[in-house]
Amino acid sequence: MAEKPKKPQKLRARLPRGLEDRGAAEIAATRRMTDTIREVFERYGFEPVETPAFEYTDALGKFLPDQDRPNEGVFSFQDDDEQWISLRYDLTAPLARYVAENFDALPKPYRSYRAGYVYRNEKPGPGRFRQFMQFDADTVGSASPAADAEMCMMAADTMEALGIPRGSYVVKVNNRKVLDGMREAIGVSDDAQWLTVMRAVDKLDKFLIGDVVKLLTVGRWDGGEEGKGDFTKGAGLDEAHAKALANYIGEPSSENEAAYRYLFEPELVQSARAELRRISEIVTSARYGEDRIRIDPSVVRGLEYYTGPVYEVELLLDTKDEKGRPVRFGSVGGGGRYDGLVSRFRGEPVPATGFSIGVSRLQAALTMLGKLDVKPEFGPVVVTVFGGEIANYQKMVATLRNANIRAELYLGNPKHSIGQQMKYADRRNSPCAIIQGSDEKANGKIQIKDLILGAGLTEIKDREEYLKKQAEAQYEVDADKIVEAVREVLARHGVTWG
Amino acid sequence: MAEKPKKPQKLRARLPRGLEDRGAAEIAATRRMTDTIREVFERYGFEPVETPAFEYTDALGKFLPDQDRPNEGVFSFQDDDEQWISLRYDLTAPLARYVAENFDALPKPYRSYRAGYVYRNEKPGPGRFRQFMQFDADTVGSASPAADAEMCMMAADTMEALGIPRGSYVVKVNNRKVLDGMREAIGVSDDAQWLTVMRAVDKLDKFLIGDVVKLLTVGRWDGGEEGKGDFTKGAGLDEAHAKALANYIGEPSSENEAAYRYLFEPELVQSARAELRRISEIVTSARYGEDRIRIDPSVVRGLEYYTGPVYEVELLLDTKDEKGRPVRFGSVGGGGRYDGLVSRFRGEPVPATGFSIGVSRLQAALTMLGKLDVKPEFGPVVVTVFGGEIANYQKMVATLRNANIRAELYLGNPKHSIGQQMKYADRRNSPCAIIQGSDEKANGKIQIKDLILGAGLTEIKDREEYLKKQAEAQYEVDADKIVEAVREVLARHGVTWG
Repeated sequence: MAEKPKKPQKLRARLPRGLEDRGAAEIAATRRMTDTIREVFERYGFEPVETPAFEYTDALGKFLPDQDRPNEGVFSFQDDDEQWISLRYDLTAPLARYVAENFDALPKPYRSYRAGYVYRNEKPGPGRFRQFMQFDADTVGSASPAADAEMCMMAADTMEALGIPRGSYVVKVNNRKVLDGMREAIGVSDDAQWLTVMRAVDKLDKFLIGDVVKLLTVGRWDGGEEGKGDFTKGAGLDEAHAKALANYIGEPSSENEAAYRYLFEPELVQSARAELRRISEIVTSARYGEDRIRIDPSVVRGLEYYTGPVYEVELLLDTKDEKGRPVRFGSVGGGGRYDGLVSRFRGEPVPATGFSIGVSRLQAALTMLGKLDVKPEFGPVVVTVFGGEIANYQKMVATLRNANIRAELYLGNPKHSIGQQMKYADRRNSPCAIIQGSDEKANGKIQIKDLILGAGLTEIKDREEYLKKQAEAQYEVDADKIVEAVREVLARHGVTWG
Repeated sequence: MAEKPKKPQKLRARLPRGLEDRGAAEIAATRRMTDTIREVFERYGFEPVETPAFEYTDALGKFLPDQDRPNEGVFSFQDDDEQWISLRYDLTAPLARYVAENFDALPKPYRSYRAGYVYRNEKPGPGRFRQFMQFDADTVGSASPAADAEMCMMAADTMEALGIPRGSYVVKVNNRKVLDGMREAIGVSDDAQWLTVMRAVDKLDKFLIGDVVKLLTVGRWDGGEEGKGDFTKGAGLDEAHAKALANYIGEPSSENEAAYRYLFEPELVQSARAELRRISEIVTSARYGEDRIRIDPSVVRGLEYYTGPVYEVELLLDTKDEKGRPVRFGSVGGGGRYDGLVSRFRGEPVPATGFSIGVSRLQAALTMLGKLDVKPEFGPVVVTVFGGEIANYQKMVATLRNANIRAELYLGNPKHSIGQQMKYADRRNSPCAIIQGSDEKANGKIQIKDLILGAGLTEIKDREEYLKKQAEAQYEVDADKIVEAVREVLARHGVTWG
């Protein structure tokens, strides 16, 4: 520090890709959202638990869709004892570790919830971040479809509590065992091949059915014909299986279903269907209709650890982005049964089911839809500095703060003009400012400037009107009535604090 | 998934060292603490902003006390474009990056606050974690000692808002320039040597003055004499300087001060003292006495980026740990002026000062002192399952939830006896449980079991008394009066939800 570096290189202030800073309005909106979600989850009898941001890599396991590309998907580093540690990529894998570690101490079924940031080492894109918030609830220790049904109902209740009207969202339910049944029926024994099938099916909401059939069979060229664009390897299914599968999932109809059933209906699928019927019965008897929760064979879910019912919450609202292009929000949450995740540690079966809300994603959607109040709060009352002793102004600030009024001393250059200080107060969105020059001080007075009334002044053309309004926006009061005078301004504009 | 691994190895469920899970009571206590801190910070006119958990390593800079050991102190990994990324080790360095990146868009002075986890790749120990929460406030763009004074007053107000009585905490203030002045006076030009001096001074609260003198001069053996234990290299000062320094800082007295001044009072120190006097004047005129904020020459602060006034909040309360050993809490927060941190990006001077509360550390202290309510909340009402149709019980749960009452269906094995289900409800700390057997169902009745009254039953010796109390603790009501009946139990025990 005593010796300065010879060539002071200026650092560039920038964030790594896929990360973002969050301002006051966004933070307030997230808080309102998480408070609402917490309220619903607690009404359902879930209690909070939190785990840290990182875990041993082996404890998290590799369940991301990217698992075939090693070292991708997660952020990892080696600890000083050479063990690998990873940032959590979701809140489910850490919960499984927590439950396994504290198994005997926890009531079972163990019903818990948690909100937190998760981290994905993926290619960021529009609306796709490398740090984002999830809010999860899980029931560990219950194999009952009633536990799955409850997750779906809670998902629906949460959406409505967040202000999304019925009909503008849907909870879709499927069963991984239906997919596992297909696999059995087609006779795919290779895991990598099956993964390719799953990914192709997952593309049905983006691609045409014909393109998905290509992905399921011989592969697909991005450019539409051979040699054009990138080539995605196919899953190698025969044409009949691929078509029946893609048709039935992509456009469920009785005809397509018949063709599908003919090829893919072993026993496993029968039992999976029975589970889905059970969930259907429970939610129906609790009066959740198909407008809220419905069985949908297209739901796959990206994570590899699901073993039974899977569910997905979809926003059905469309909107336009700032360039007028249509935006479909799609999935804002989901989950499923993961009976094998806790068992990895315990060596005994531990059934579990959980549900996760993509808070960041849902917040982005609600903001675009205008469903979130993102109006900035009023800033503090600014006490300006106008010659004289700083301690004197500081005392006014302390008086306001002691009355629970948000207030601050102007801490910029004290030589700044009152105009410059007012400009600062405007940028802070302050409802009013306090001015005390030497004359006012001598007479025990202060000037109150109502910045919201003041902001309307420039639009007034009529001179008399202007002077009248100006007098309403800035006036003198006794210095020892500062709290009452400020409270009057706050009340005038409905400021909720103070 | 189709083929099981041949040797299923059982994973061990464990967290990496220095990390912890947090349960319901802790989470609730943290929420109460951060709500209180936020309220005080907002009253002071600070507005929220949040940055992500990681940043480019060069943007964070290396300002931890461990900076001479490369790659220690922070968790780092390489991004796919080979750039180094680190988990934030505090909330100040990311704020500096944020302000530099958004400089023109921000009002100046820019007053902001934020809470978040920070990560230190250090050796964990008792009460020393690798992930912990901080709550910071910063004023960027003000060089005024009034900004520093405000931080100190806000620190004091925050402590009192958190329930720490006046006299049980103190905000100590010093000035880094006093230390820089010393350096100039002693003539230490080597940075590493100066760091050793600073660290030795920082040990004055733990070591005897004589030991610190050894650290300042020839070095010190852990075991107390040559060759015993580990050796810490000395800073190489001469004996006279070392003694004057350690005596004055360790035991401020007019005699020690005179000796110190004789050796160390260049111009830089004079101006630093003037700044401290200014802070003193401002806080005194706002009626913060020396019982709350006082100048103390022993404050050094670990982080390297401080350039002017530094402050530290110390808890003066002592307590005993579970083994009866005395515990001194010491520092639970602090901060200082860091005029060079934003400038690294801007190439122009940007004065700044900030204050950080160690939320996790303070929470641990308040918990040990019994100042935090860590009583678990009541769990949900448990609707037990006793033969019959699950959908019927599910409907009762839905009715309770629709009335905003926390409730759940027993989701364990439905063949469990009512006794086993009651044991679960007790573990959940439920206020009451609902039972409906086939007889009750036929008559349109339910049984309400008040679990809190029920818990007291085992202590009653008298048979008649027992039967009376038992009847009070479990009784039949009309099934369609379930909401009213449960509300009565909740009211009886002062349950705050529902």
